[in-house]
Amino acid sequence: MMNQIHTSTVTVHFGDCDPAGIVFFANFSKWMDDASHQYFWKCGLPRWADYHRATGILGTPLVETNHRFVAPATYGDVLTITTTVTEWRARVFIQTHRITRGDTLICEGRETRVFVRPDTQDPTKIKAVAIPADVIAACAA
Amino acid sequence: MMNQIHTSTVTVHFGDCDPAGIVFFANFSKWMDDASHQYFWKCGLPRWADYHRATGILGTPLVETNHRFVAPATYGDVLTITTTVTEWRARVFIQTHRITRGDTLICEGRETRVFVRPDTQDPTKIKAVAIPADVIAACAA
Amino acid sequence: MMNQIHTSTVTVHFGDCDPAGIVFFANFSKWMDDASHQYFWKCGLPRWADYHRATGILGTPLVETNHRFVAPATYGDVLTITTTVTEWRARVFIQTHRITRGDTLICEGRETRVFVRPDTQDPTKIKAVAIPADVIAACAA
Amino acid sequence: MMNQIHTSTVTVHFGDCDPAGIVFFANFSKWMDDASHQYFWKCGLPRWADYHRATGILGTPLVETNHRFVAPATYGDVLTITTTVTEWRARVFIQTHRITRGDTLICEGRETRVFVRPDTQDPTKIKAVAIPADVIAACAA
Repeated sequence: MMNQIHTSTVTVHFGDCDPAGIVFFANFSKWMDDASHQYFWKCGLPRWADYHRATGILGTPLVETNHRFVAPATYGDVLTITTTVTEWRARVFIQTHRITRGDTLICEGRETRVFVRPDTQDPTKIKAVAIPADVIAACAA
Repeated sequence: MMNQIHTSTVTVHFGDCDPAGIVFFANFSKWMDDASHQYFWKCGLPRWADYHRATGILGTPLVETNHRFVAPATYGDVLTITTTVTEWRARVFIQTHRITRGDTLICEGRETRVFVRPDTQDPTKIKAVAIPADVIAACAA
Repeated sequence: MMNQIHTSTVTVHFGDCDPAGIVFFANFSKWMDDASHQYFWKCGLPRWADYHRATGILGTPLVETNHRFVAPATYGDVLTITTTVTEWRARVFIQTHRITRGDTLICEGRETRVFVRPDTQDPTKIKAVAIPADVIAACAA
Repeated sequence: MMNQIHTSTVTVHFGDCDPAGIVFFANFSKWMDDASHQYFWKCGLPRWADYHRATGILGTPLVETNHRFVAPATYGDVLTITTTVTEWRARVFIQTHRITRGDTLICEGRETRVFVRPDTQDPTKIKAVAIPADVIAACAA
């Protein structure tokens, strides 16, 4: 089953760049994280803060990330982030992002995320839950 | 003499917010700095990196900033930054920014900046120069 | 009445620096904000999160900042931040920070902060309260 | 052949944390990048900026990163970063970092890096070079 694909854009700021004059790599993962949030809104889901009030689920923290840096970008560049969900497993899902500038691939990212809620035994802790069915339905292409 | 007024927008990311759930204040000054760059481009000047190659001038580092935080903003908010130059002095100039969300004032900033070039005595150092006449002309309303 | 003076240190990271090879200015204000937290701990007060549980007070958000940038710093530099409270007013207080590298002054900052608690009318809002007497006592030199 | 293992520490700042009150994940990769720089200094090599002047080599940009997030950390925490090089290949090397708080593993990272120099055909571009023999020798345990 395919999921929807959404794009967002980001303009690189001077302060996003490092002494080499190019985007400091950690900013790519920050932007992809934001694209993850935007992806679910564009699929019609509420913001996670509102979803939390309705369901008790807190959002989708990252378990693992993989980033591949292909070409540099610099300030003034307008980048496109193309995001989808490539796999729903029982308790984790895989979200991928491609950052491009025109036809040039800048960076690829693959995030492993979970849905969590507060632990009923110890509410200062969180635990992973099954992927909510309404999320899966909302993202389907 | 009045100068041009330009606006830019920024979308607040989850990663821009702090444990209080609101924009971490230092991001406002980062965004205003970017708005400073964009302001001069919108006035028709080249990027400072290109201006440097043409003139030897390196850009407009900050000498002093003043920020007033009026209301919070959070992730998902789309903010408008309204930027102008309020004063050209002999060796410094004043650039101001207002960040708003709709009609709500979020933050005001006032930056004191200089134009610099490498010091001819010691090229690892920089020194302030007179405000370039072409910059003043380009920004005039 | 004088207040205690405390110092903390920060090592500049590559990723803290901008395309000019020097600390991106907004990081100085981030470090000073952290020095504000550390200052109160060093005066013997609990972390604001713990203070909140005990008193309902949420911390000390910024109302206004003023920064003066005197000399650049770069990655690998170890900076000292010297922090004090220079003034307690009825509802705001002034905290100042000097960042130095050895004998060289890098940056000065002056923060206007308030103590806040949730608004009893609307708990999603906050309102400023009188400076707590135990805070004033703890910080006295 | 084993390489040296070095540690560095970082104190988590309020501004490093996100609305969940925990370290925003991208900061872990920023800190590991800094630990990479520190690792080579601790092995007796010069800063990359000085190494560049001596050899023409510009540093060690990232080609790929993999991060695994095991437990959260929050502001005030003092984290230890344990860094080594696990593999030298012809043109890439693998650097790994473990971030711990006491005995608790917080985050693991694996970076694939290259050594680069300006492209002789087009000095605005960079190209990967063989891992310098003096670097390999300096890092050996």
